[in-house]
Amino acid sequence: MNVLIVHAHPEKKSFSSALKDTAKEYFKSKGDTVVVSDLYKMNFQPTGGKSDFKDIENRDFFKYQMEQLNAFNKDLFDDIIKKEMLKVEAADLIIFNFPLWWFSLPAILKGWVDRVFAMGFCYGAGKGVYEKGVYRGKKKGMLCFTTGGPDFSYTEDGFNGEMNKILFHINHGMLYFVGMDALPYFTAFGPARKSDEERKEYLENYKKHLGKIGEFKSLF
Amino acid sequence: MNVLIVHAHPEKKSFSSALKDTAKEYFKSKGDTVVVSDLYKMNFQPTGGKSDFKDIENRDFFKYQMEQLNAFNKDLFDDIIKKEMLKVEAADLIIFNFPLWWFSLPAILKGWVDRVFAMGFCYGAGKGVYEKGVYRGKKKGMLCFTTGGPDFSYTEDGFNGEMNKILFHINHGMLYFVGMDALPYFTAFGPARKSDEERKEYLENYKKHLGKIGEFKSLF
Repeated sequence: MNVLIVHAHPEKKSFSSALKDTAKEYFKSKGDTVVVSDLYKMNFQPTGGKSDFKDIENRDFFKYQMEQLNAFNKDLFDDIIKKEMLKVEAADLIIFNFPLWWFSLPAILKGWVDRVFAMGFCYGAGKGVYEKGVYRGKKKGMLCFTTGGPDFSYTEDGFNGEMNKILFHINHGMLYFVGMDALPYFTAFGPARKSDEERKEYLENYKKHLGKIGEFKSLF
Repeated sequence: MNVLIVHAHPEKKSFSSALKDTAKEYFKSKGDTVVVSDLYKMNFQPTGGKSDFKDIENRDFFKYQMEQLNAFNKDLFDDIIKKEMLKVEAADLIIFNFPLWWFSLPAILKGWVDRVFAMGFCYGAGKGVYEKGVYRGKKKGMLCFTTGGPDFSYTEDGFNGEMNKILFHINHGMLYFVGMDALPYFTAFGPARKSDEERKEYLENYKKHLGKIGEFKSLF
C-alpha cells in the first residue's frame, strides 16, 4: 500500500509530529511505502492564485477553478503543485495529520487542499463527485488530529459541539467529495495537558486505530 | 458603526469583490466607517508560525498558542498581525467576504483567523469563550460568500449537505467562539452560472440583507 501523510505542524517535537512519526513507522514496518508532505518543513505556500500556474489563460479575469482546469489540460501547474498531485495519484491512503485550529485545518493544510485538489485534476470536466468521484473505491482518506479542548467538549451537548458536525466540511466536503472513503478519524484530545504516560497511550491507541484501517467503513 | 470587511478573492472583478464593494458602499452611504482588509491585495501570509512574532519565548519547543499569549502580554506581534488586531478591536461588525472553497474559507482567510484571532488577544488567559467570550454583546460577525454549486445542493437532502452544518465550524467555531453574534449569512449561489440580471438581483438582495442587520438574532 502507498500511504501519503500530509502533515501540518510547525514544531517537529510536537505531539502532532509524534503521531505523524508513529504512522510513518507503523506503515513502514508493515512493508508499505510512506511519503510525507511536511508542509511547514517544505515552506508550502497556502494561497491559491496565479502563482499556481506557469501560464494562465485569461489575463483579464482571473477565475481560479477555470485556470486550474486549463492548467490540468495544458500541463501548466507549478512544479510544487504538480509534485503534490503525483503523490496524491500514487497514494492508496491519504492521511491529513494536523492540530485542529479553529475547528478546521491549519491554513497551510487548507491551502494544500485548495491548490492540489484542483478542478480538472480530481473533479470537474466530466469527472464526478461523491459516489461518482474519481477516487471512489481507489483511495481512502483519514484525519489524525490533536485538539486543545477535552473530549467531553466535542459532544452534542458539549460546548464545542459534536465532532462529526465540526468535521463535516472536511470528511464530507474534501475527502468524500473526490470519492475517497472517509475513514473514521483519530483524535488526541488536549495532549498538551496530558501526562507522558497518557501521551504514550495515545500513540499506542493510534497504532491500534491504524491496524483497523482494512475493516473501517467509510463515514459516508 | 465601525465595519471591518475581511475580503479574500484574487480577482477584483469577481462577483465576490462586487459583494464586498456593495457592502462598502452601503455602509458608507449610511454614515458608517468601513475598513476593508483585502487579503489578496495585501499579499497576506496565511501560515501561522514563528513569523507572527518579533521574538519568541521558547526556542526549543515552538507552541503556537503559548507564543501568541506571550506576544500579547509582551507586545511582540508582528506589525501586520497587530494592524489587523487593531481593526478587529475597532469593529462593531466583522464581515468575512469570500468564495466558499472546499466548504470552508479560502486558506488566505483561514490564515487570517489563525493568526489574528490569537490566544490572549481574543480568548484564553482568563478570557472566556462563547457566551462568555470577550466580544459578547460588543461585536457582530457575518459571512457573505459565493458558491460553485446551486442552492438545492446545500439542503439536508442535497448532495453537498445542509449549509448550516457545513458552516458550523465557522459560525460557531470562529465567530461565536469569541462571543460575537453570528448573524445570518448571505449566500450567492453559483453566480458564475447566472445572468447579469440575476447577479444584479443578488447585489440588491444583499443590500436588503444588510438593511436587516439591526433586527437579526444570533445563530447561537
